[in-house]
Amino acid sequence: MAVYTDVAEEELTEFLRNYDIGKHLSYKGIAEGVENSNFLLHTTTGYFFLTLYEKRVAVSDLPFFLGLMTHLASHGITCPQPVKTRRGEALGTLAGRPAAIIGFLEGAWPRKPRVVHCVAVGRALAKLHLAGQDFPMKRVNTLSVLGWRPLFDMIASRVDTLQHGLHALLSEELDHLEKFWPKHLPDGVIHADLFPDNVLFLRNRLSGLIDFYFACNDILAYDVAICLNAWCFENDHSFNVTKARALLNAYSHERKLSADEQEALPLLARGAAMRFLLTRLVDSLNVRPGSLVRPKDPLEYVRRLRFQQGVASIRDYGVEQSGLVA
Amino acid sequence: MAVYTDVAEEELTEFLRNYDIGKHLSYKGIAEGVENSNFLLHTTTGYFFLTLYEKRVAVSDLPFFLGLMTHLASHGITCPQPVKTRRGEALGTLAGRPAAIIGFLEGAWPRKPRVVHCVAVGRALAKLHLAGQDFPMKRVNTLSVLGWRPLFDMIASRVDTLQHGLHALLSEELDHLEKFWPKHLPDGVIHADLFPDNVLFLRNRLSGLIDFYFACNDILAYDVAICLNAWCFENDHSFNVTKARALLNAYSHERKLSADEQEALPLLARGAAMRFLLTRLVDSLNVRPGSLVRPKDPLEYVRRLRFQQGVASIRDYGVEQSGLVA
Repeated sequence: MAVYTDVAEEELTEFLRNYDIGKHLSYKGIAEGVENSNFLLHTTTGYFFLTLYEKRVAVSDLPFFLGLMTHLASHGITCPQPVKTRRGEALGTLAGRPAAIIGFLEGAWPRKPRVVHCVAVGRALAKLHLAGQDFPMKRVNTLSVLGWRPLFDMIASRVDTLQHGLHALLSEELDHLEKFWPKHLPDGVIHADLFPDNVLFLRNRLSGLIDFYFACNDILAYDVAICLNAWCFENDHSFNVTKARALLNAYSHERKLSADEQEALPLLARGAAMRFLLTRLVDSLNVRPGSLVRPKDPLEYVRRLRFQQGVASIRDYGVEQSGLVA
Repeated sequence: MAVYTDVAEEELTEFLRNYDIGKHLSYKGIAEGVENSNFLLHTTTGYFFLTLYEKRVAVSDLPFFLGLMTHLASHGITCPQPVKTRRGEALGTLAGRPAAIIGFLEGAWPRKPRVVHCVAVGRALAKLHLAGQDFPMKRVNTLSVLGWRPLFDMIASRVDTLQHGLHALLSEELDHLEKFWPKHLPDGVIHADLFPDNVLFLRNRLSGLIDFYFACNDILAYDVAICLNAWCFENDHSFNVTKARALLNAYSHERKLSADEQEALPLLARGAAMRFLLTRLVDSLNVRPGSLVRPKDPLEYVRRLRFQQGVASIRDYGVEQSGLVA
């Protein structure tokens, strides 16, 4: 839900003079993308997205995000493509904000993900990891293990108002994660937020990956762990082993997981649950009256964290280690 | 800002089988339209709006709204056109809601209305009133003078928390409006909500009127009064006489205002200010945490009401009575 910055027609006309995509016919605010202001832009040459980057996105990170999208597309990953200005720039300024025009991508995100979607996501994630290997830019993951304690400190005194015992759970889990977080697993470019609403499908075929605004360099298998949490739990909070197996097998079909990666996966999944639990808690406890963003329920990630704490090995995800080993 | 009801791809596929507009390629929630859930729908044959009517819209009123849009278009008014199913129906059911597919309209609403926009709106409003004369269906305006006291009663005990003296202002104004509200002015179909965000322009030319979900039968000049409040005040709350004159002259060029209508206009404008002040107060005082709708500021309509209370005659709107008389 997001249009934080509105755009006057005169400003848009002026902005479009830098591009070779014709004159605007209409632009409408889009209720997708929590971090930025998004408009659907129709010009005399076609349909585009117009994105104004809001303050939660650091301007200095934008070249990484936009460059990555261009790089991935040139490696066969379907993702939104920044339209360059006549001078070859992917980024401009509109209504006082950094702004970009992005190509329109067909498809709809799956409201009720099924096994067929998990297969496609596993495969696409592995391909993204492979395609990212020779991307030259770097971006540190500020929301990885070292970023979690500062988030916890922001809300530590208030979390027990949401659920009794939450402070102790988070505190002990943080100690554990900081102590055992793996240091030598294969790393590279990860999407870091590949939830169902960031994967488009067209009649059960994956048609694109979107929203690269958390992408960064981190442990590749951590991205897999994020997807296990995001795609394999049912609405009743049960873990669907069939979906997990499908996702992991599809991933390893494209990029084999090493024995170390497989062993670390349950811990990485605990970390992934912690990361989204913490940011949701911060959003939920800091929501301002009149905010246009409905905070996502943090407590569903308490359940996911507890589930992952109980996972002994990737057998609990429905796969035999031998089946995935390189 | 509105997507209250989400739609799964399977449901949409099924729904589109009733229509002759091809298969969907994408659908995205649109952040426009406060009352309903709106999606931009791209199919193999073009772009459309998909609207799911939420509970604030009475299902029994939908045939009036959809029928009116079709009627107006056949009389040369550019407005969104309901797409009929193969069986000739404008209305269906999707995700448990009444739903319609509406043709896409080009243009963008003016964020900073200028005189040229006021001229176009005045002219379009008069044409709408003329075109509505032979529309056979009727809809009572539940938000006209008789509907205001029940709204006031909902919030009377709390309004002084927003602004000291507001209770007395509203109470005395209601008495005045109920006593002097005109009974014998020309009536017909009015838009009743023709604010800048409901009028689309393409490079300073009006390209369409949208959002007919408050349309009803009422005093035609009351619709003019709504527009005076909606289009002729500046951000600093000053009244722009040039814009008012432009709007009124353009209107009367298409449909002359009778002497009675002209005389009543200041009172109608007080009523129009009261109507939007009351609904904004109700929305503002009843907003729920987590709501996706940011209530519009009610207090700007206190200022408009006070301005209109001070208007002696339409000369204060910048026009000579003789210039408008039939």
